[in-house]
Amino acid sequence: MWQATVLSLFPEMFPGPLGFSLAGRALETGVWSLEAVDIRRFARDRHGTVDDTPFGGGAGMVMRPDVLSDAIAAVKTPERPTIYLSPRGRPFDQARARALAAGAGVTLVCGRFEGIDERVIEAYGLEEVSIGDMVLSGGEIAAYVVLDACIRLLPGVVGTPQSLAEESFEEGLLEYPLYTRPAAWTGPDGIERIVPDILQTGHHAKIAAWRREKAEEITRQRRPDLWTRYVARRGEGLKDSSERKGKGQ
Amino acid sequence: MWQATVLSLFPEMFPGPLGFSLAGRALETGVWSLEAVDIRRFARDRHGTVDDTPFGGGAGMVMRPDVLSDAIAAVKTPERPTIYLSPRGRPFDQARARALAAGAGVTLVCGRFEGIDERVIEAYGLEEVSIGDMVLSGGEIAAYVVLDACIRLLPGVVGTPQSLAEESFEEGLLEYPLYTRPAAWTGPDGIERIVPDILQTGHHAKIAAWRREKAEEITRQRRPDLWTRYVARRGEGLKDSSERKGKGQ
Repeated sequence: MWQATVLSLFPEMFPGPLGFSLAGRALETGVWSLEAVDIRRFARDRHGTVDDTPFGGGAGMVMRPDVLSDAIAAVKTPERPTIYLSPRGRPFDQARARALAAGAGVTLVCGRFEGIDERVIEAYGLEEVSIGDMVLSGGEIAAYVVLDACIRLLPGVVGTPQSLAEESFEEGLLEYPLYTRPAAWTGPDGIERIVPDILQTGHHAKIAAWRREKAEEITRQRRPDLWTRYVARRGEGLKDSSERKGKGQ
Repeated sequence: MWQATVLSLFPEMFPGPLGFSLAGRALETGVWSLEAVDIRRFARDRHGTVDDTPFGGGAGMVMRPDVLSDAIAAVKTPERPTIYLSPRGRPFDQARARALAAGAGVTLVCGRFEGIDERVIEAYGLEEVSIGDMVLSGGEIAAYVVLDACIRLLPGVVGTPQSLAEESFEEGLLEYPLYTRPAAWTGPDGIERIVPDILQTGHHAKIAAWRREKAEEITRQRRPDLWTRYVARRGEGLKDSSERKGKGQ
């Protein structure tokens, strides 16, 4: 069973959306487990204090190292990475989701206020992970992102493994356009839009080629950064195969 | 009042985490409003069908254009952008959060299954926004990210505007390290870690310089992409000011 532990000042936020749909069913059937631990339980005074003002001044509060450290120490295990969700972290992506999903689980530390004391990050060698270049009011929503991305990759969660193989980022490309019934549909602008002919031919190889072409086109237009990486990797792939060919001759 | 409308097959996922803490209080006090609309209400048959198989074959299901279009038409308003949350979209960031927060609100379309019919995106000119290069089981968690990032920027939600001015991305830099009490803390590794001296001097200008230096160092090391943009912008700023100086001479 894939194990998720979340440290938070709002443990009641869990499972939250992860209790619905695919993730919710997988939680019920024991594909993964979830433990939400209240950081406040580790406060050292009767007021349940978990934060204090920042040294050096400035607005807001910082989570105390002693309290947070006790919370981490209580749940940390060598089998699973301990990740602190922070906008300063390494950007989370589908490759990281795949790697995490292939492991035993994850422990996620959710900060609140301005953030956590730097010394806790150092002392535990916490891996800092960011879900994007925006600031959230806490790590909890970022934890949903990480967990949802991982959980749907666990065996048996998404019905058909083919769905996973064909989606965005699996080959470093954005996804091609999707169409379903009705084949002819008139939009709010009064224009009738027809599904591309090629998709109605049943010619699998041509459809696959059309989809790849569209995925490449969309990636090139919208995400030059992903496109550059894709082209570089494809180049290496071609080089590899010509090298192999060379050896075989 | 800032208005958020969410179209989803899981309207019961809202407000979810946005009902807690800062966003929750702001919802109660009328800083923002939330309407979660069930897309299934717009199904055209008595089974509540909202999806069908993709033209051209492949795994999974696609959301039907007719049903989704009716749902969008029922809530769309020219005052607020209508955003489809999709990994193919433009990356969401703090600048987009600021722009959205400064407007009248937002309408968010949450896809499920493999995605939505491309023709709906075309017909409504939907803005596609991505919260990151990972695949989620639906748009709902991405909607939380967008809403939370916006809501905390609304006037009065975060106590001190200074908190907002000093955080990650506001100047294109990641945030400097934070420290709070105790000043000397012994971690689980037995090492005593002391808060940097400079932060205990009370010398505001020196502290500000140290923090900027650290923020620059962290950004340069961790996010060469942000660093390049920051340096370019700083260069323009320097050029602007020397141009201004030139004019004044």
